[in-house]
Amino acid sequence: MSGPDPAVAATRLAVRHHLADLPARATVLVACSGGPDSVALAAALAFEGDRAGIRAGAVIVDHGLQPGSDDVAQSAAALCREMGLDPVEVVRADVRQTGAGLEADARSARYAAIEAVADRLQAVAILVGHTRDDQAEQVLLGLSRGSGARSLSGMPVRRDRYIRPLLALPRATTLAACAAYGIEPWNDPHNSDDSFRRVRARRLLATLESELGPGFAAALARSADLLREDADHLETLAIRARAQLPEAAGDPGVDLEALAALPRAIRTRVWRLLAAEAGAPLADVSAAHVESLDALLTSWHGQGPLHVPGGIAVARTGREIRFTLLRETASA
Amino acid sequence: MSGPDPAVAATRLAVRHHLADLPARATVLVACSGGPDSVALAAALAFEGDRAGIRAGAVIVDHGLQPGSDDVAQSAAALCREMGLDPVEVVRADVRQTGAGLEADARSARYAAIEAVADRLQAVAILVGHTRDDQAEQVLLGLSRGSGARSLSGMPVRRDRYIRPLLALPRATTLAACAAYGIEPWNDPHNSDDSFRRVRARRLLATLESELGPGFAAALARSADLLREDADHLETLAIRARAQLPEAAGDPGVDLEALAALPRAIRTRVWRLLAAEAGAPLADVSAAHVESLDALLTSWHGQGPLHVPGGIAVARTGREIRFTLLRETASA
Repeated sequence: MSGPDPAVAATRLAVRHHLADLPARATVLVACSGGPDSVALAAALAFEGDRAGIRAGAVIVDHGLQPGSDDVAQSAAALCREMGLDPVEVVRADVRQTGAGLEADARSARYAAIEAVADRLQAVAILVGHTRDDQAEQVLLGLSRGSGARSLSGMPVRRDRYIRPLLALPRATTLAACAAYGIEPWNDPHNSDDSFRRVRARRLLATLESELGPGFAAALARSADLLREDADHLETLAIRARAQLPEAAGDPGVDLEALAALPRAIRTRVWRLLAAEAGAPLADVSAAHVESLDALLTSWHGQGPLHVPGGIAVARTGREIRFTLLRETASA
Repeated sequence: MSGPDPAVAATRLAVRHHLADLPARATVLVACSGGPDSVALAAALAFEGDRAGIRAGAVIVDHGLQPGSDDVAQSAAALCREMGLDPVEVVRADVRQTGAGLEADARSARYAAIEAVADRLQAVAILVGHTRDDQAEQVLLGLSRGSGARSLSGMPVRRDRYIRPLLALPRATTLAACAAYGIEPWNDPHNSDDSFRRVRARRLLATLESELGPGFAAALARSADLLREDADHLETLAIRARAQLPEAAGDPGVDLEALAALPRAIRTRVWRLLAAEAGAPLADVSAAHVESLDALLTSWHGQGPLHVPGGIAVARTGREIRFTLLRETASA
């Protein structure tokens, strides 16, 4: 008797591992788009969920961004039901334009919709179908920001309720698994729309693979894992270092010498923490902002107050650094 | 009166900064190939060296790898002398094939030749012409190794006697500076030989810039700076952590629990230190080796001894990890 197709076996094994510690009859959902990655994941969950005695369901998000998106969602739902997943829910995402770009807005709406379903069904875990190739694309896009370890650390296998069981597998495995099941997955036309940075990143990765050697995407994903560990540890150390900084006389000031004595790898992160404490949105504080903050210590020539996002002024006065929230800017 | 061309001014400013702290009449050499980067650097050194009252010279390496390399070296030397650099020495590099590849072998030979001249002339500093684009290429090649922060941290501005004053400037600046001087720099035919990984990396960077946005190379260089700081600090912490590990009974063993208690970002680096102490050549210890060493702690199922480069066996026995040099393999 021959076993399952190797690609099917690989996706099942990847899922099994994450179901091992769950309580019996816990609800686990797979977020399924109908594309190859999440279809292969849904099939693996249906099989392994049954063996593990958990309640395995699916949530399908209809973004309503493309004509026929409703049909695509219903087909994906029908496929999930055929696989034996239950419950299977289709939910409409409410994509609001925030100015962050269509990809980011669709992503926010998608996760909000998934969260709502998961809450209602009391799901303990939500499986998403990102593969090693998605991870590599994420790292490549992070590289174009140039803001260090955290922005290069990609997606974690697990964060909160979200689990990415396929993150160590190449996309070729999910395609092969779908073929083995005889399923023709949906091909998102957005995936060939070059106006999306992610689509360009995907194409560039293929070029990098062929020019610098196969394994480039795998290497990016491996670097992401290592850099995530680095970022985690250095951030922990920075939080500790920040807590130990002596406060200057008067509350919002930080002692100059204590700050200057920190190693750069810690100090750049402490600057970010201090900016966040003062009210800056962390995502908006760039490496360039941190660089100019640090120049208050390392190349002091009497420069005036600096401004960081969130309407915050940072000034060096005497033996301390002061963060001041400028009310007029903050309310703008 | 108009000042110098902006590109010329930028290269001079970059060099000036590094000459500021040198003792009067100290000897500083520029390593000049005759290509645009090192020619622009040589011209900047000639100008700034004079102002700073130091002895500014040049060393030109003839690798003897291409027909006419002698003429190229002599022309570069003549150019350096015209600029007022003195002494100017041409030295022949002895490229030995070590199996590391032509680029690596030529590089080793080049640095050995430069070192010999610098020693003889008692040079306190050697300037090399790497630009921000070289840095980005280095990072891109490091990405294909997938071995974390250190391999992505590129070249430092300063290490030992070597200084890279142009590391924050784009290659376009050195080209513009040469044009402003009216110098037609040498165009190394190796730079268009696609069999070199570095040449392919250069071409790929141009593609990445046009697809993911101008500033990609600058972002890579900025990430390299941040990751170098991270790597420096984490390695310092790892050395400290290793020194504090309790030795197991008998000398070559390391206590298992103490090792397992370290955070991953430190532990992976401690593994590398332990392997190096046992005699492994650090450059040959890959992320994959470290991963299997760490599995002795994190997924222990009674696996037998592992082997790391340098003929070293690593085994978990009882409550300790033991590194053993296998003489027969080490002498092979």
